[in-house]
Amino acid sequence: MITSRCTRQLFQSGWRCSGIKVRPTHELNDRRLRISVNQIVSTASTLTQSPQPDRDAQPILYSYWRSSCSWRVRIALNLKNIPYQTKAVDLFGEQHSDEYRAVNPMQQVPTLQIDGHRIIESVAIMQYLEETRPQPPLLPPDAYERAKVHEIVELICSGIQPLQNVIVRKYVGKEKQKEWAQHWIKRGFSALEKILATTAGKYCFGNNITMADCCLLPQVFNARGFQMDMSEYPIISRIANELETMPAFSAAHPYNQPDFPSGSREK
Amino acid sequence: MITSRCTRQLFQSGWRCSGIKVRPTHELNDRRLRISVNQIVSTASTLTQSPQPDRDAQPILYSYWRSSCSWRVRIALNLKNIPYQTKAVDLFGEQHSDEYRAVNPMQQVPTLQIDGHRIIESVAIMQYLEETRPQPPLLPPDAYERAKVHEIVELICSGIQPLQNVIVRKYVGKEKQKEWAQHWIKRGFSALEKILATTAGKYCFGNNITMADCCLLPQVFNARGFQMDMSEYPIISRIANELETMPAFSAAHPYNQPDFPSGSREK
Repeated sequence: MITSRCTRQLFQSGWRCSGIKVRPTHELNDRRLRISVNQIVSTASTLTQSPQPDRDAQPILYSYWRSSCSWRVRIALNLKNIPYQTKAVDLFGEQHSDEYRAVNPMQQVPTLQIDGHRIIESVAIMQYLEETRPQPPLLPPDAYERAKVHEIVELICSGIQPLQNVIVRKYVGKEKQKEWAQHWIKRGFSALEKILATTAGKYCFGNNITMADCCLLPQVFNARGFQMDMSEYPIISRIANELETMPAFSAAHPYNQPDFPSGSREK
Repeated sequence: MITSRCTRQLFQSGWRCSGIKVRPTHELNDRRLRISVNQIVSTASTLTQSPQPDRDAQPILYSYWRSSCSWRVRIALNLKNIPYQTKAVDLFGEQHSDEYRAVNPMQQVPTLQIDGHRIIESVAIMQYLEETRPQPPLLPPDAYERAKVHEIVELICSGIQPLQNVIVRKYVGKEKQKEWAQHWIKRGFSALEKILATTAGKYCFGNNITMADCCLLPQVFNARGFQMDMSEYPIISRIANELETMPAFSAAHPYNQPDFPSGSREK
């Protein structure tokens, strides 16, 4: 029996288990809990310990130059002045390697290795950075204002980007993919423009940079790549133009990545 | 000129502006800021005040019985013992009405009206509930553990659900939609099963209910609707079966909603 507390101890110390029935209990005292953990660790044959990243090592970002989700995290790392190494994952196949599947079961970028952990999903990563490195903040201090930022983040990260990303476009087929991507970006941007009319100052929410801005510029870059008419979205365009000039955003730009194939400028 | 602080005052008091150039400044003192706000409010012709929900009224959830995103929020509201009224939005057209577009520019459910505000996007809503009504918690106390929960939330809410929701299926067409939905759910569940093998206890993360569980059951319901073979995902299935028996989850079930068309059991 693994207790709730045992599970946490095992999880935090890097043990991963499967096939063991987990049942919460409040019966055991601390000493017996510790013995219980030791017994499980030493005897359970289904336990495996995956190599844990070094807690004090410089963060490593598994990234692809053109990935808008990677770009979001690159911006957040830059804004928070967190030095990191880039480990390029070529999305023309490398994401499906056994090695990378063990890092990220979704076979996507980004993955951030930080504080001895690996975290996937760009929004989860940005939230973790915000909680562990709160300065400078990428969320407002008020709960409702934070909700408005999260709205914009989710609108882009679940309402637009997943529908026009490379795997979906491949599945849709080469002939239809431009019209497909334009359709979903247009739908999302039309709503986003209305929301920004009520929230934006210089940036997506007021006059301070937030997570919403980390998501906006990469999505606008994608929209331009699909030859969208951005004049329909004056607020989105104004903010994107503003963000583009900022060092944290431009340093994170696809064309400035170590794995960008020099000489080529893809649409 | 609207200063950063003025913008916040206007925003929090329910004013929505557009077409006014916003420029941050730190030159004005408090008294002059207040005068500045009053002048803007009384003179700017582009300012409009949308009717603000009553701050003390019972929360209203704009919901559709079959919407898995609405179901996530219904579960979270139930788990946190927050009484609410349901305002049904029939997704066979009502979401496109002028009235509802003013509530939710994405023309989707859910929208939660709470504390005198309206919040859209299920993940933003759940996060707001967690921050303003922390008991019982739907996120673990440790930042890395929270990140693991957010990973699962995002995997489902941006990696699976958006690709198989009703608007995308309509766009794909009736003939192809089942194969389409199965493809994306299969991809997401394969990754999720691997992640849960490292995080799950009785529920998605350890032995306490989290936001991840609020997202899991509705997604499994969708998968069953598309006749997915759930035996490929034993951990997902085990947790979903567990959750289904809990009152907070079953009360939020599509078939138990006031707008569920009695007598019909849609697949």
